[in-house]
Amino acid sequence: MTEPAAPIDFYFDFSSPYGYLLSERIDELAARFGRRVHWHPILLGVVFQATGSVPLTLQTSAKAAYWRLDFERSARFMGVPYRHPTHFPLPTQNAARAFYWLHGQDCALARRFAHAAYRALFVEDRDISAPQTVLEIATDAGVDRSSLESALQSPEIKARLKDEVDNAMKAGIFGSPHVIIDGEAFFGADRLPQIEKWLETGGF
Amino acid sequence: MTEPAAPIDFYFDFSSPYGYLLSERIDELAARFGRRVHWHPILLGVVFQATGSVPLTLQTSAKAAYWRLDFERSARFMGVPYRHPTHFPLPTQNAARAFYWLHGQDCALARRFAHAAYRALFVEDRDISAPQTVLEIATDAGVDRSSLESALQSPEIKARLKDEVDNAMKAGIFGSPHVIIDGEAFFGADRLPQIEKWLETGGF
Repeated sequence: MTEPAAPIDFYFDFSSPYGYLLSERIDELAARFGRRVHWHPILLGVVFQATGSVPLTLQTSAKAAYWRLDFERSARFMGVPYRHPTHFPLPTQNAARAFYWLHGQDCALARRFAHAAYRALFVEDRDISAPQTVLEIATDAGVDRSSLESALQSPEIKARLKDEVDNAMKAGIFGSPHVIIDGEAFFGADRLPQIEKWLETGGF
Repeated sequence: MTEPAAPIDFYFDFSSPYGYLLSERIDELAARFGRRVHWHPILLGVVFQATGSVPLTLQTSAKAAYWRLDFERSARFMGVPYRHPTHFPLPTQNAARAFYWLHGQDCALARRFAHAAYRALFVEDRDISAPQTVLEIATDAGVDRSSLESALQSPEIKARLKDEVDNAMKAGIFGSPHVIIDGEAFFGADRLPQIEKWLETGGF
């Protein structure tokens, strides 16, 4: 009997367009090669402060204009629905905390919540920075609203998210999305073809 | 009789790894769709100074380590030979000036020189910042050495390169490689699949 292959790690921020695009493809791709995916929401604001990075749409005007165009073109290229959000970029600690709390209860539910939160921002143009929106999304996914409402304010879940972000930075994560396969790092939704080839061949 | 399609514009710096990777594919890809490519060497040092950007390998250690790994992995993925240069990044004004001077004489010769200069840096690990190396590469490509040697110091060719860099920045170019197809900008060698689909479909 062979050992099951180790899961793939998927790091992302809920306000990252390319994180959203990859979130719509990574599980299915991994499953084709018998791999599971561990999702790790992080806070790019914290990571960027530590690394001195600037969000793509807050860079010089030529760059900001390019990335804005590339988000939508890359979405069309990948066949993923995309509507650029009115509120962007926005803080995502509530969505990330909700994810980790749900993950402690039911990891399939946490995954459904994560997809719903990403689609709420990048398809339905909802302001997922607001706790009320996060609670609505979770409730629609079948979560008990009042338990989650208390959990979002608990010191434990705040500490959990802080630890996750610290650990991601220690693992060399500097942006979103980042995928780690057996120790090999891939940055960006545009590395999807390389990720596929890596899974298919075990490294190239 | 139909108008021939407009050429594609390819902007690059001779010290850009992803520029080199794309240089090995772009002409052949364009030709499959009946398009020619105009090559435009630029100076990223000038562009980065104007836009406040930092070269990939001079960023924080986690980022620098990632990009270093990604240069080589992307080369293997694309099937392009790559050996990371000892001297990197390096100034490329001599190679760029040689290109524009040659282009004024014989554009096919300029193209052969450009390929040879890129391969000298990224395969043969030669220091192409040195005028002597640029002259050797050009001589091997069939250029008269003493004419080029004088040309590299001429005010006209220096002004030409400066104008090319200014025009690239005015066109919104902020990095290397950049490809413009009928007004649509593509940044990065990793946009090759999108470039191919754009050429195939006329836009998506």
